[in-house]
Amino acid sequence: MKNSTHSHIQVGIVGGTGYTGVELIRLLSNHPNAKITLLTSRTEAGKAASEIFPSLRGVCDVAFSDADIEALKSCDVVFFATPHGVAMKAARELVASGTKVIDLAADFRLQDLAEFEKWYGLAHECPDIMAKAVYGLPEVNRAAIAKADVVGNPGCYPTTAILGLKPVIDSQNTQDEALIDKRIIIDAKSGISGAGRSAKLNLIFSESSDNFSAYGVAGHRHLPEIRQGVETLLQSKFAHHIRFVPHLVPMIRGMYSTIHLGLTDAGCALDWQAIFEKAYADEQFVDVLPKGLLPETRMSRASNFLRIGVHQDNDEGVLTVMAVQDNLVKGAAGQAVQNMNVMFGLDEKAGLNVVAVVP
Amino acid sequence: MKNSTHSHIQVGIVGGTGYTGVELIRLLSNHPNAKITLLTSRTEAGKAASEIFPSLRGVCDVAFSDADIEALKSCDVVFFATPHGVAMKAARELVASGTKVIDLAADFRLQDLAEFEKWYGLAHECPDIMAKAVYGLPEVNRAAIAKADVVGNPGCYPTTAILGLKPVIDSQNTQDEALIDKRIIIDAKSGISGAGRSAKLNLIFSESSDNFSAYGVAGHRHLPEIRQGVETLLQSKFAHHIRFVPHLVPMIRGMYSTIHLGLTDAGCALDWQAIFEKAYADEQFVDVLPKGLLPETRMSRASNFLRIGVHQDNDEGVLTVMAVQDNLVKGAAGQAVQNMNVMFGLDEKAGLNVVAVVP
Amino acid sequence: MKNSTHSHIQVGIVGGTGYTGVELIRLLSNHPNAKITLLTSRTEAGKAASEIFPSLRGVCDVAFSDADIEALKSCDVVFFATPHGVAMKAARELVASGTKVIDLAADFRLQDLAEFEKWYGLAHECPDIMAKAVYGLPEVNRAAIAKADVVGNPGCYPTTAILGLKPVIDSQNTQDEALIDKRIIIDAKSGISGAGRSAKLNLIFSESSDNFSAYGVAGHRHLPEIRQGVETLLQSKFAHHIRFVPHLVPMIRGMYSTIHLGLTDAGCALDWQAIFEKAYADEQFVDVLPKGLLPETRMSRASNFLRIGVHQDNDEGVLTVMAVQDNLVKGAAGQAVQNMNVMFGLDEKAGLNVVAVVP
Amino acid sequence: MKNSTHSHIQVGIVGGTGYTGVELIRLLSNHPNAKITLLTSRTEAGKAASEIFPSLRGVCDVAFSDADIEALKSCDVVFFATPHGVAMKAARELVASGTKVIDLAADFRLQDLAEFEKWYGLAHECPDIMAKAVYGLPEVNRAAIAKADVVGNPGCYPTTAILGLKPVIDSQNTQDEALIDKRIIIDAKSGISGAGRSAKLNLIFSESSDNFSAYGVAGHRHLPEIRQGVETLLQSKFAHHIRFVPHLVPMIRGMYSTIHLGLTDAGCALDWQAIFEKAYADEQFVDVLPKGLLPETRMSRASNFLRIGVHQDNDEGVLTVMAVQDNLVKGAAGQAVQNMNVMFGLDEKAGLNVVAVVP
Repeated sequence: MKNSTHSHIQVGIVGGTGYTGVELIRLLSNHPNAKITLLTSRTEAGKAASEIFPSLRGVCDVAFSDADIEALKSCDVVFFATPHGVAMKAARELVASGTKVIDLAADFRLQDLAEFEKWYGLAHECPDIMAKAVYGLPEVNRAAIAKADVVGNPGCYPTTAILGLKPVIDSQNTQDEALIDKRIIIDAKSGISGAGRSAKLNLIFSESSDNFSAYGVAGHRHLPEIRQGVETLLQSKFAHHIRFVPHLVPMIRGMYSTIHLGLTDAGCALDWQAIFEKAYADEQFVDVLPKGLLPETRMSRASNFLRIGVHQDNDEGVLTVMAVQDNLVKGAAGQAVQNMNVMFGLDEKAGLNVVAVVP
Repeated sequence: MKNSTHSHIQVGIVGGTGYTGVELIRLLSNHPNAKITLLTSRTEAGKAASEIFPSLRGVCDVAFSDADIEALKSCDVVFFATPHGVAMKAARELVASGTKVIDLAADFRLQDLAEFEKWYGLAHECPDIMAKAVYGLPEVNRAAIAKADVVGNPGCYPTTAILGLKPVIDSQNTQDEALIDKRIIIDAKSGISGAGRSAKLNLIFSESSDNFSAYGVAGHRHLPEIRQGVETLLQSKFAHHIRFVPHLVPMIRGMYSTIHLGLTDAGCALDWQAIFEKAYADEQFVDVLPKGLLPETRMSRASNFLRIGVHQDNDEGVLTVMAVQDNLVKGAAGQAVQNMNVMFGLDEKAGLNVVAVVP
Repeated sequence: MKNSTHSHIQVGIVGGTGYTGVELIRLLSNHPNAKITLLTSRTEAGKAASEIFPSLRGVCDVAFSDADIEALKSCDVVFFATPHGVAMKAARELVASGTKVIDLAADFRLQDLAEFEKWYGLAHECPDIMAKAVYGLPEVNRAAIAKADVVGNPGCYPTTAILGLKPVIDSQNTQDEALIDKRIIIDAKSGISGAGRSAKLNLIFSESSDNFSAYGVAGHRHLPEIRQGVETLLQSKFAHHIRFVPHLVPMIRGMYSTIHLGLTDAGCALDWQAIFEKAYADEQFVDVLPKGLLPETRMSRASNFLRIGVHQDNDEGVLTVMAVQDNLVKGAAGQAVQNMNVMFGLDEKAGLNVVAVVP
Repeated sequence: MKNSTHSHIQVGIVGGTGYTGVELIRLLSNHPNAKITLLTSRTEAGKAASEIFPSLRGVCDVAFSDADIEALKSCDVVFFATPHGVAMKAARELVASGTKVIDLAADFRLQDLAEFEKWYGLAHECPDIMAKAVYGLPEVNRAAIAKADVVGNPGCYPTTAILGLKPVIDSQNTQDEALIDKRIIIDAKSGISGAGRSAKLNLIFSESSDNFSAYGVAGHRHLPEIRQGVETLLQSKFAHHIRFVPHLVPMIRGMYSTIHLGLTDAGCALDWQAIFEKAYADEQFVDVLPKGLLPETRMSRASNFLRIGVHQDNDEGVLTVMAVQDNLVKGAAGQAVQNMNVMFGLDEKAGLNVVAVVP
């Protein structure tokens, strides 16, 4: 830790006025080993966080300041809860000063520069840092995260997709013939907070409540990230065609990915419930539900658990994997804190003992 | 009717891209005696209404045009579903040409110029027209509406408040002593569509769903309108102090006004259930619920019914009146169509036979 | 028409206390050629419909009576808005007396007796009537419906699935080689009203709001009906494997079926947007959205429109069909009224001019 | 502490299958000084808590057992998260054995036996214990709670009402003349979880979503408790007439009490914002919002904060107090844990550092 004289990790959050920002504050407020020392916002500098979010009154009295690179350098770690393209402007300098970076946006998720520029429409400002950045999915990448200076915190959909597919791809990688069909269908559903804290007409209650819709049908930025997860991260030995269609659900939080897989004969011969259970037996935040119990998003609401239901039907030759999380926790801020814990050698659950809020 | 050669009333709608606009289109699409011939929008001219509101596909193929005063003059009646301050710019010319005006905004609701300018922050551009305009609450003002050239369509809250108080004030006016205490508390609750089709941060689903809040506690524009209703329209013989506090409910449509009245001894001596039933026995759209049945907003959802529940408790000396409506129908567009029907001598129910949507 | 002396079709509704029942009442209340003369309920006999559904106050004053077969025989047509297994007990006698039957439950949907008994766990009481019954999907089966005595009104999911697949299967049937892959994935989402008006713990607001879940993953009764639709009704020349996974959305009404199809090279060579538009060009209630416009459930809310969005991507080799409706209207009561209109030679839109309620 | 050899307070929860039960488990799971050692349920004995509430998977592995009085006696404290009438059957024996009792139902809230029996329709089984029980509102009753063996945890509405009125009644008690009018209007609104985890038709999503309604207008069990709070607990020197009307809001959690007070001239002379701020300056869980900031229920969602907004208008002579909480936390389980902390001399915030979940 950079500031070895402090008892707590000194945390900076850039852009704490969005939903991932306030969620970071919620989680870090009770973290036993970390302390928010700097909170920045271009638009709200000078105001207390609790003025923007009165839910934080009595909890967090840090005030927003202007984003100042020198101040950020005094932190042990800086979270970027900003739009795409912000973290990459500061990352080099922070890393050089010994400050670790966790970007909750997309600047350090993709490893292919061309893909990044194609999907995000931005020229990357530090491709060298990008090349060394680590994809922050601890259940896949824990060792690398532990040594990383810069972590690209995964997108919410890719988190469910990659963790929902990992036991399948890993198993298949041990085989000579494919266990599943070439086509992988990920039909995903997200609560509306995934669209951010932004005044857009389609997001207002009267438009989005009591309504259900697909979006991004022609292509969504999380598709290349899911593909990278399967091909590069999980190193799938077999080629797959991934179709990803996201939908918007009239609920605030929650994400549900229904992954439709066709089983080959070899795939039918395996017990997928057992494979999934074994794959995640040692994970604290991935919960494979017992056979027959289907996940619901509320099982994870406001907690860091990603819960997985598995349904295998050999008569139909199908395997249905349902991966569920809170998009703002395991899908964003919770995972970022989990990454911080890994990066600083802390208990991976520190600060993440928040229990799902039911009802 | 101006266009006597037509079989249908020729209707123009200015500003049909908001919620009162689309609701007018919904209702008028099935009106047996009226036809939308002109639809204007500054921002959407050239587009079909069904491009903005795909819910109208197969129903309404009128396209938006620029607001042109000459074109508007060709209509028998023009509805202004616009922000405050628009109708007053066109009213004089329309009236002069024989076109009737129904304003769903506030330009012609208040009769006191100073009050208008104080609460709306606008100088009125046609105070003479304002002075002759009629407050469009048919159950109170039917005869005047029938002869009016310009109707100020009531605000949503005032509709519930005035109709909820009318039997009380009318009864009291026949007495020498007061029947109710001086203080009238109107604790009102509205669905979020009342805030309009507008991209504001506090209205987005993630902010307003699963949440309840008061607003306008320090003063709301509908207060002077409610006061005018009690004092001028209902001509209360006794002075009252009216306290009005509106709240926002996480539902799209619906309005619920809980009116708290204290009963004097003379007030306790009366049977208020019977008085309310008698008061509205001949009204088609005001429904006094039988004793013991409490209203719910869904009883009126998408219909033009205002439903009233009455609870009298002489031990406690209280009379609680609960007046419920769909804020976009009886509270806006439905009432506007009802006013049009009265103005043109049509069956008051024409076009308003929409049944409440339950569930 | 049986009662030729009446100006209106005499309609009976058995079991009008559920959601399909009250929706039938809502629609038929404004039907120009039909009149509800009999409403039956075992549990609510003696009460007015408007006592159970105060939303009907001022609209429908028919009272529930006991279900009496003789009284039902006096009707021209009887709708069964009952649980599965009720209509089959009365159908033979009604048909014998010349009364037509439209069952909104499943007694006359499936044509394979064994399938019916397997999925519904009931012995069918009139297999001969079942054999002659017609599947009531007018866009597929109009001529047969026009001559039918007994119509099995389709399930809500099958309506979206079959109409969403029809242009694809029909096109493929004209070819020598398949246009789509063998596997058809139907990932469907329904509003909660689809679960009926029933006091179940999982349906209460505190359990089902702000939540999303899959159900019936291991097998749902609508699967054999969808299969029958593809194989028997649409007579698919090619064999398909259909995977159907339904989900529950926290909204009252609305159904969204995302149909994932893989395109063969031959399939990629076609313009599916054009094929869909042409297929439904003459249909009043099936609306193919223009290219690029994605459906949302609210576009159909409370109306009888089924709206379809089509997305074709030849690079990916996928065709995504999104079929959207109000589950209680086109998915149940509206389609039943449409069937009645066809059976009695009326304008197919009669009573169905209800405009979608937006917002 | 009874079990002085343990490092943690040994906690029993009777009836942990309702919403107050699961909320107790959520909070106590992270309590630094307490541990759930016994969880009982008549209906679910043998099952793990996480089988009933999968949201607890990975958090709480205690299983439900039958309610056995001997086992309960081994606990330091027993929470009754049961229907009314259960705690009073076990309280005497538990107290005799040295086990403290906190009842989240109404057995020990009212101090007037006749009132209890009138409103709850039950004969009290231990009136002597009832007489010694302490009303568990720490901000009013802290010293007595610290010494209590049996605590009646307040109802949710009374918590908002009594804490919303306390600064007013306390101030008035120091005066010779009244500061507020005789009539106190409490117009209260609750999320649906307040109705419990119970399969009732009116609670299902399709009935209660997108809807707003009043209930208990003729009398609600929390009225005598509010009256007792004002008269006995706060010892109001002046007589008041309290009118309480609760409403149901389509949201899961949250409670909003709008308290309408008329100010006398003497009342207008005071600065109520300052009085409220001072009154609660030392309280950890009562948050008086700064002038002009109105509370919203989400500011407290899932946390133990009761937040109060105060609006004074001397022109109108009104004081409006808005008291907001999460009905399941400060309105139930959180307050119960707070009481336990007081009873056992712990930090009052222990286990209650849960931050409001926003969005």
